[in-house]
Amino acid sequence: MSDAPDLLTALIDALRCLPGVGAKSAQRMAFHLLERDRDGGTHLAGVLQRAMQGIGHCKSCRNFSESDECAICANPTRDPALLCVVETPADLLALEQATGYRGRYFVLMGRLSPLDGMGPQDLGVELLKRKLAGGEVRELVIATNPTVEGEATAHWLGQLAHAAGVRPTRLAHGVPLGGELEYVDRGTLAHAFGSRRDLED
Amino acid sequence: MSDAPDLLTALIDALRCLPGVGAKSAQRMAFHLLERDRDGGTHLAGVLQRAMQGIGHCKSCRNFSESDECAICANPTRDPALLCVVETPADLLALEQATGYRGRYFVLMGRLSPLDGMGPQDLGVELLKRKLAGGEVRELVIATNPTVEGEATAHWLGQLAHAAGVRPTRLAHGVPLGGELEYVDRGTLAHAFGSRRDLED
Repeated sequence: MSDAPDLLTALIDALRCLPGVGAKSAQRMAFHLLERDRDGGTHLAGVLQRAMQGIGHCKSCRNFSESDECAICANPTRDPALLCVVETPADLLALEQATGYRGRYFVLMGRLSPLDGMGPQDLGVELLKRKLAGGEVRELVIATNPTVEGEATAHWLGQLAHAAGVRPTRLAHGVPLGGELEYVDRGTLAHAFGSRRDLED
Repeated sequence: MSDAPDLLTALIDALRCLPGVGAKSAQRMAFHLLERDRDGGTHLAGVLQRAMQGIGHCKSCRNFSESDECAICANPTRDPALLCVVETPADLLALEQATGYRGRYFVLMGRLSPLDGMGPQDLGVELLKRKLAGGEVRELVIATNPTVEGEATAHWLGQLAHAAGVRPTRLAHGVPLGGELEYVDRGTLAHAFGSRRDLED
């Protein structure tokens, strides 16, 4: 390795900052870009530079945004009476792509997790309380993940909503569409069975 | 998606130029860098920019190099009588890391492949012929891959060597170390059986 070009080694090392990319993948990526896609690599370098410097957080919902206020918060056709709380920007994107939701969001950028030192302050609780107390929000859609920490966070958010006189709702849990009962885990199946609903005509 | 920040979308798109990275992985990478490793992302952007512009090919062996001549070719302790031909810089790196080879290399940057339009000219045949005719090289170690195209390339390289009065050698093929015969493919096993060697004391 001592004879390898320094810049190439530096590129392979730098690529390893990407999640899920180890030594071999990084090497493959570096060689691919050098051999076949220098324009793509140069483009990526430019966009990456601008994104790392230019993307901050929306002052209203804490989502990633280039400007002070993100496009969703700045959009006047979005219903201010609905506020959906998600853990991460990736969750927000998933909801945007899957649902026709036309309300606004609040991004915790994490979840309550005492072991990781994540408390209410780190999740923007003051900003959220101000929003709930503002009088505009009528329903708080709690869309944290159905994990132990996500459920604890949902419980805490529910209490915040009740205290502010806002109606909290939670995403439905149950058997995923297209799933087969045989392969659904026990916890989900028990929950789905217990939460069975009347069939309507 | 129309409400997503433009720079974020551009970053996710740009990351897809990396091999093996689809829409979901690119999104995960972008969010990871933004949430947890902005310094790493900025560093990667800088190195990538410099690498795409600064890394060319060694004028002597065709490997990637920042300078006119790569570190291996410029190293006077490397034996000029040995020349190892590989298909790609990745193959060269693998040999450097695994073997104690102290000769020099020639990187084809491909293999004979008429279907892909790769002929001798694309593999630097003129440069290789000049090297073989130079009188310094005594052994041509042919380390192309044991694929159909790699074997055809090896055959062609062997003819070039013979024509120049240089001794061509080929990497040994057989059962990989640590492999179990039960799981070795038939072709390899037949080759290993046919090429069996006397056990020495």
